[in-house]
Amino acid sequence: MSDFKDAIAILGGTGDQGLGLALRFSKAGRHVVIGSRKLERAEQAVKEVKAAVPDANVEGFDNADATRRARIVIISVPFEHTASTIKGLKEVLAPEQIVVSMAVPLATAVGDGAMRTLGIWQGSAAEMVKGLVPKGVEVVSAFQNVAAHRLQELEHDVDCDIIVSGPKAPREEVMGLCKLVPGLRGIDGGPLSNAKIVEEITALMIGINIRYKLPEGVGIRFTGLPEE
Amino acid sequence: MSDFKDAIAILGGTGDQGLGLALRFSKAGRHVVIGSRKLERAEQAVKEVKAAVPDANVEGFDNADATRRARIVIISVPFEHTASTIKGLKEVLAPEQIVVSMAVPLATAVGDGAMRTLGIWQGSAAEMVKGLVPKGVEVVSAFQNVAAHRLQELEHDVDCDIIVSGPKAPREEVMGLCKLVPGLRGIDGGPLSNAKIVEEITALMIGINIRYKLPEGVGIRFTGLPEE
Amino acid sequence: MSDFKDAIAILGGTGDQGLGLALRFSKAGRHVVIGSRKLERAEQAVKEVKAAVPDANVEGFDNADATRRARIVIISVPFEHTASTIKGLKEVLAPEQIVVSMAVPLATAVGDGAMRTLGIWQGSAAEMVKGLVPKGVEVVSAFQNVAAHRLQELEHDVDCDIIVSGPKAPREEVMGLCKLVPGLRGIDGGPLSNAKIVEEITALMIGINIRYKLPEGVGIRFTGLPEE
Amino acid sequence: MSDFKDAIAILGGTGDQGLGLALRFSKAGRHVVIGSRKLERAEQAVKEVKAAVPDANVEGFDNADATRRARIVIISVPFEHTASTIKGLKEVLAPEQIVVSMAVPLATAVGDGAMRTLGIWQGSAAEMVKGLVPKGVEVVSAFQNVAAHRLQELEHDVDCDIIVSGPKAPREEVMGLCKLVPGLRGIDGGPLSNAKIVEEITALMIGINIRYKLPEGVGIRFTGLPEE
Repeated sequence: MSDFKDAIAILGGTGDQGLGLALRFSKAGRHVVIGSRKLERAEQAVKEVKAAVPDANVEGFDNADATRRARIVIISVPFEHTASTIKGLKEVLAPEQIVVSMAVPLATAVGDGAMRTLGIWQGSAAEMVKGLVPKGVEVVSAFQNVAAHRLQELEHDVDCDIIVSGPKAPREEVMGLCKLVPGLRGIDGGPLSNAKIVEEITALMIGINIRYKLPEGVGIRFTGLPEE
Repeated sequence: MSDFKDAIAILGGTGDQGLGLALRFSKAGRHVVIGSRKLERAEQAVKEVKAAVPDANVEGFDNADATRRARIVIISVPFEHTASTIKGLKEVLAPEQIVVSMAVPLATAVGDGAMRTLGIWQGSAAEMVKGLVPKGVEVVSAFQNVAAHRLQELEHDVDCDIIVSGPKAPREEVMGLCKLVPGLRGIDGGPLSNAKIVEEITALMIGINIRYKLPEGVGIRFTGLPEE
Repeated sequence: MSDFKDAIAILGGTGDQGLGLALRFSKAGRHVVIGSRKLERAEQAVKEVKAAVPDANVEGFDNADATRRARIVIISVPFEHTASTIKGLKEVLAPEQIVVSMAVPLATAVGDGAMRTLGIWQGSAAEMVKGLVPKGVEVVSAFQNVAAHRLQELEHDVDCDIIVSGPKAPREEVMGLCKLVPGLRGIDGGPLSNAKIVEEITALMIGINIRYKLPEGVGIRFTGLPEE
Repeated sequence: MSDFKDAIAILGGTGDQGLGLALRFSKAGRHVVIGSRKLERAEQAVKEVKAAVPDANVEGFDNADATRRARIVIISVPFEHTASTIKGLKEVLAPEQIVVSMAVPLATAVGDGAMRTLGIWQGSAAEMVKGLVPKGVEVVSAFQNVAAHRLQELEHDVDCDIIVSGPKAPREEVMGLCKLVPGLRGIDGGPLSNAKIVEEITALMIGINIRYKLPEGVGIRFTGLPEE
């Protein structure tokens, strides 16, 4: 745990998007900690990462142990498990940590279609997460609009902007993470309440993928921003 | 099936509210058909109804068979199973039938609290149901605000108004059903889109029950309406 | 200003509902301060109150001056003027004050129908108000569901429950105000976020008034609550 | 009116975005009809178009007369005037016409901030419009995300995707309109209900413009779509 400060935990790192981020951050040389409800599944994901990135610094744990090992904790579980996952971490999360919500409240969570979203009482899934973490833990929303397939294809640039919302300091830190991945660009998405819009964009993108028959998924870009 | 026209099916009639309605409509002398995902559970609920209402005309079936036996089909399953339940009835539901949505999209469906609701893309759970039933099947929303405990205590009047929304003819028919139960009054709730508000009222009432410590649950009444 | 602590300011006290509250609180013997954008309109409302309640302790001012004279400030302006009214009071409102939001975001604010509501980014009109008042000013929501006609007919009991939401201490204080008016009962509506539901109920009640042709307006009651 | 079929009416064509579209469609050689509540303002906008595009085929009328002259009618009035504008066209709009909603329900319509939106009862501003037009008139949503400044600078490509939602045939027709403007690309946005998301994206883009200090405004692009 000596590198707690720089490690990145990815809970639900066994799913398509979480695994994609694990691959990309591993390839960038960062210490990645994959969490899962079941330790064996986390260990299986670790094997997959190491197969693609032989020198990866990656470990697998259950969600609680993974959370203890990294200051930045990315929540990549299906939306319907997001609240219960966070509730299960109440004794583990500590004020110095940053929780990154990737959750998209697709209506599939209640048996309806993936091109529709659920409205969230707190405004957005990210704000629901904010209401569930212990006091002092920062919550940032990011990575909702990036296709899993694009993340997993390490030989290609991702070609997608990441809109990052939340309090200023952790928001800028997560924007910085985007620079680790070729073709990702962090966009300043302002306060956490903007996650409401960003989360909905995913449902629109899923519809575009279906209508245009693009299994690898579209990305999103903003034009007219200043060059870095 | 000779009384298809007058029978009332209650899918999820094994749950607290569905069982409450089964008891009340049985006591009023109506033919009640209890549906459940598992036949044995429906049969168990039938036994409970007969124990309380010895001369009840009540039968138990799986959801599909129950739906075939009654023109009016009340959906009383948990919200998170509503879409899948309706999808499972697509081959069974026929244009002459009326589906009654009691669904309340409480945030418990995604692991959050019962005093909060989810926003539904189609406007309300009832309108989601409307989008899932075969063409020609009418959808009416009702019974979202009545406490299970009040329904089940047959020795007491329910003391609650039922706001009924949907197209005029089936709406009036469901308002008529309310008259079968002592202390229920059907209120003309206008078009189905008003279900959005009625569904949310349940979350407010749950909060009142908790704050005032009222396990039997509050009811709702409108004052100033003309006497019948 | 010696009775700042006990005075009740009603901004928009010239409108139907605000005037109704001014009449009722005046009749209960409280010092009422009516605010309006135009002083003359406030003074006209004062005359109307005094005509109905000859010994009323009532004064009229522009909104800013009215706000300076009472600890409790009820906002009874049309929803589309709520944000601008609060913004205009930023220099006047002080931390010891309680702002009571009666606002209902009816779609009439944008030219659509009165039986529909607008969704509010902050969750509810009351939470929008909370975001606009100076730090330390408490915001409570109440009085959204009571018909103006019922308030103005001083010879009749109002026969309506008032759902009061907000932080505990000011919420209980506003619940106490309800006891001043015969036929009003304050209901503990929990945190301010519940105002979202309470505000929508008004649109449902307007629809009932129209469908049942009840110009005096229905009221709402919860049954099963303990006697006071 | 001989070219009714090919003419494009732009109601609110005197505003920044409407004028931008009038300039672009004029430059593409299309017959443009600018509508305004006041004839003089429409005529002033015509002068501005002709100053920038000397051979423009452009005329100015009041909204009703403009609507009579073009099969495609783009509504570019401020959101708070959208409902009243459509209501004023009820006698004019005919089933062969296509109404294009550009409306974005920014909270500025009720005095709150431009980085927030209002939730619309019907799902989106475009669906509100759909509920107000005469039967048989098609409604498509488009052009919500394109910055006025980008449209007006005729010497530059716009560099923005336009997400077009609505029934298939008129949707494809409006997607075709996008090809008239260098740097615009029409994206198949599926059914009209998706306008809800597209409208909200504008508020997100306004926030990005403010945070990055970009008065000319960002555009939006989807990556990974097949080349035309």
